[in-house]
Amino acid sequence: MQSELRGSEIPVMTKSPRRPSVATKPGAPVFRFRMRITDGDAIAVGPGKIALLEAIDKTGSITAAAKTLDMSYRRAWLLLDDLNRSMRIPAIDTAQGGVKGGGSVLTDAGREMIVLYRRIEQQAASACRRDIMQVMEMLVR
Amino acid sequence: MQSELRGSEIPVMTKSPRRPSVATKPGAPVFRFRMRITDGDAIAVGPGKIALLEAIDKTGSITAAAKTLDMSYRRAWLLLDDLNRSMRIPAIDTAQGGVKGGGSVLTDAGREMIVLYRRIEQQAASACRRDIMQVMEMLVR
Repeated sequence: MQSELRGSEIPVMTKSPRRPSVATKPGAPVFRFRMRITDGDAIAVGPGKIALLEAIDKTGSITAAAKTLDMSYRRAWLLLDDLNRSMRIPAIDTAQGGVKGGGSVLTDAGREMIVLYRRIEQQAASACRRDIMQVMEMLVR
Repeated sequence: MQSELRGSEIPVMTKSPRRPSVATKPGAPVFRFRMRITDGDAIAVGPGKIALLEAIDKTGSITAAAKTLDMSYRRAWLLLDDLNRSMRIPAIDTAQGGVKGGGSVLTDAGREMIVLYRRIEQQAASACRRDIMQVMEMLVR
């Protein structure tokens, strides 16, 4: 569902699957958009939380997702708790106990947040393609 | 020249003049795009360097610009040196000595870099307006 949003009409060199970027050729400078929604000084939604949601969607648990992102379980848990509090409908549904000792799944709202966030990145890069290329051409290769 | 690029077709709440942002109402969460061009691990162009160029354009000196941005002269100088090396044509022309003890002015390339960077921010926010609003609506107010 997310992967179809990762394609782009513009030349893209993706160092990490979670950050669409624009490069004129491999090894050249790379352009990246990053979006954050801040609430006062706090970051309500940003690249770290979105990457975490994606990792949970893939692995099915906070522990595994945190490992994937080289992050402590504690930090992952705090980020998710923070995100859930920022959203009208929580992004993550964490099962307590159960046969497999619990696990975490994205809610529909969580999935929608990922899709929108990634689509915004792609749209922004497409819309600004010409100016981005112009900036890139001003740089030493 | 830059100021006319700061307007936007979308509701904008600008906490800082150098970061266009989208908010549905004052006090609500604020959406921000930030763009970076990386070259390996280094950031060739990013919000800090652009803000510094703008401050130099306004104040006419690195010292005054650094003060405006609450930055040490040393840090400002290093950022500018780094930016100048990244660009085919340097962004800043620093006069040595002279009647007023020197001073720094933007080159045409420096001005163009600011204009393009700010225009990309505005274009991105305009192009993604609908999805940004949808994300904002998923958040607690």
